[in-house]
Amino acid sequence: MAENKIQKILRETGSEAIVTESEDFRRYLTGFGGTDGIFVADKESARLYTDARYFEAAEKALAGTDVQAVLLQSSLQVREVLKAYKSIGVAFCRTNLEQAKEYESLGLELLDAMPALSRSMAVKSKEELENIQKACTAAEAGFLKLLPELKEGMTESEAAALLEYNMRVAGASGTSFDTICAFGAGGSIPHYETGNVKLKFGDVILIDFGCKVNGYCSDITRTFLFGDDGKHEEFKKNYNIVLGAHQKVLDEGHAGMLGREADAIARNYLRDHGGLDKYFTHSLGHGIGLNIHEFPPRLSSGSNDVLAEGMVFSDEPGVYFAGEYGIRIEDSVTIADGKFRSFMKTDKKLMIL
Amino acid sequence: MAENKIQKILRETGSEAIVTESEDFRRYLTGFGGTDGIFVADKESARLYTDARYFEAAEKALAGTDVQAVLLQSSLQVREVLKAYKSIGVAFCRTNLEQAKEYESLGLELLDAMPALSRSMAVKSKEELENIQKACTAAEAGFLKLLPELKEGMTESEAAALLEYNMRVAGASGTSFDTICAFGAGGSIPHYETGNVKLKFGDVILIDFGCKVNGYCSDITRTFLFGDDGKHEEFKKNYNIVLGAHQKVLDEGHAGMLGREADAIARNYLRDHGGLDKYFTHSLGHGIGLNIHEFPPRLSSGSNDVLAEGMVFSDEPGVYFAGEYGIRIEDSVTIADGKFRSFMKTDKKLMIL
Repeated sequence: MAENKIQKILRETGSEAIVTESEDFRRYLTGFGGTDGIFVADKESARLYTDARYFEAAEKALAGTDVQAVLLQSSLQVREVLKAYKSIGVAFCRTNLEQAKEYESLGLELLDAMPALSRSMAVKSKEELENIQKACTAAEAGFLKLLPELKEGMTESEAAALLEYNMRVAGASGTSFDTICAFGAGGSIPHYETGNVKLKFGDVILIDFGCKVNGYCSDITRTFLFGDDGKHEEFKKNYNIVLGAHQKVLDEGHAGMLGREADAIARNYLRDHGGLDKYFTHSLGHGIGLNIHEFPPRLSSGSNDVLAEGMVFSDEPGVYFAGEYGIRIEDSVTIADGKFRSFMKTDKKLMIL
Repeated sequence: MAENKIQKILRETGSEAIVTESEDFRRYLTGFGGTDGIFVADKESARLYTDARYFEAAEKALAGTDVQAVLLQSSLQVREVLKAYKSIGVAFCRTNLEQAKEYESLGLELLDAMPALSRSMAVKSKEELENIQKACTAAEAGFLKLLPELKEGMTESEAAALLEYNMRVAGASGTSFDTICAFGAGGSIPHYETGNVKLKFGDVILIDFGCKVNGYCSDITRTFLFGDDGKHEEFKKNYNIVLGAHQKVLDEGHAGMLGREADAIARNYLRDHGGLDKYFTHSLGHGIGLNIHEFPPRLSSGSNDVLAEGMVFSDEPGVYFAGEYGIRIEDSVTIADGKFRSFMKTDKKLMIL
């Protein structure tokens, strides 16, 4: 029998056990989406300790898997289990000092499980890819429903709220991050905070949004015009250049490429088309999964991460003209049969509402 | 000049400086709501280090306050600042092992600032109370708008999404936690996860919801009937008992009372009215502020927290009948002029849609 992912993480971490209470890691390691529980695995077995609120659902979800549900009757129970080990692997970036001090009081040596965990999480299973596809489909459906609902005078916050509602109706459990909705100049700030600016005829609209299905995220950005006031010739030219960069990454990206090579496809394209690379002030992309930002892979100018079959990441070149407008075009993308494949279906040709 | 809150936290923590990167603590200590920045305060000064994305907004927001905005040009800059100290106070529950190891590599002794910080945050300023009132008003407005929008066949998830949309339109920046919306038996699970159950005539509806305004949270629960199918006599009787317990806390609660005394008002009332206390399986309340759950104060049977003027907490007695229905009635409450005062305006008499 092939080594399962839990045993692989355990071996790579070099600890006697792996312990986590984080919802995303627990879901990844067990497949169970409950919001509470302590996962403990060693060479012999993997167990999910969960209290009466979740036990029945956990037992049902874990039937036939390598993970056993255990009814948690007292927090002392897990302390007793952990005391049997000399070392445990925990994600350092998710373990706070209070928790760490409690582990140390049990005489446990702590090793960082995050490197092995994030490597394992980077390559998605068939089921994970299906969940991400669902999250992308729900996000696109919500966006398409939003378009005719956008009206002059509506605030950014209202538009974001409508889009979030539409994604929920399309099957999402919630958003994967706070929706960025910018009408006009706000779009020139890559991490703009959605506010109360009102929509005007001729505005450039930039919306960066995503939702969750079964815990998995989607991440999309669309930039378009709310009516054409005839003053957007430069914007239109630049839009097509950014779209060219975005599309070139999809066309030429392949398994085995480094993160910095993918980033360079977009950056060089922007440089060769009007020197727009100097307005591309962030990296090309980041991994996507149970979290909206997962690393590896990074698609940035300094990244040596190898892009592999089954990884999921964003392809999001953007250019920003302070006080004027921003353009970002982003799809969630995977690698299938060696090639980049977008999860998105909508046409990215410049849209004028 | 009176000792300001930063100096008080510093003195109580006993460290040379206080350092935090948490959004809520940063907002509390500076009043600035940006999503990025490092706050460092010592006896001489308080500074917010923030990069070019947020510097201008921070400088503007902090003008005339005790806190100075400093442009962060490199992460090394803060390391250099911290190296000057022997000890720093950080919130242990928010400091992960990666960060802690970095601090320790600078030779810094770490002290837990959380006790002093959470004591300070428990008592709200006038401005904080105004923000919580706004968050409560937006939540109630969203809820009142939802009522006529509830239709037979609608899923819990759709209703939750509609309510969230309504709160946004009413001025909220987002939810303060994942909305719990239960149609029928799901309400008997105190932490029910909103699902795809469809609304039927005669259902007991339980909705636990809240939103944020300027970073501050509201928290409300309402239980009501979607039509009267004549089978709810016991429910109606129990509803009025829970409402009696909820109201008695509002009427008799006062400054100086202990958390366990407030809890006992509700618990004893339920006991004296049909022995319902055995179905009240959680505590009466928790502190509310920039976070949806803040402690102190705890309003629970074991809590010796002193309830003081200006604190904000929930008054949420509930009873749960497994597989049948749940009843919870919750307001966000403060103490003003020595007495408990609800932020909510809506009538809590049993509503039958």
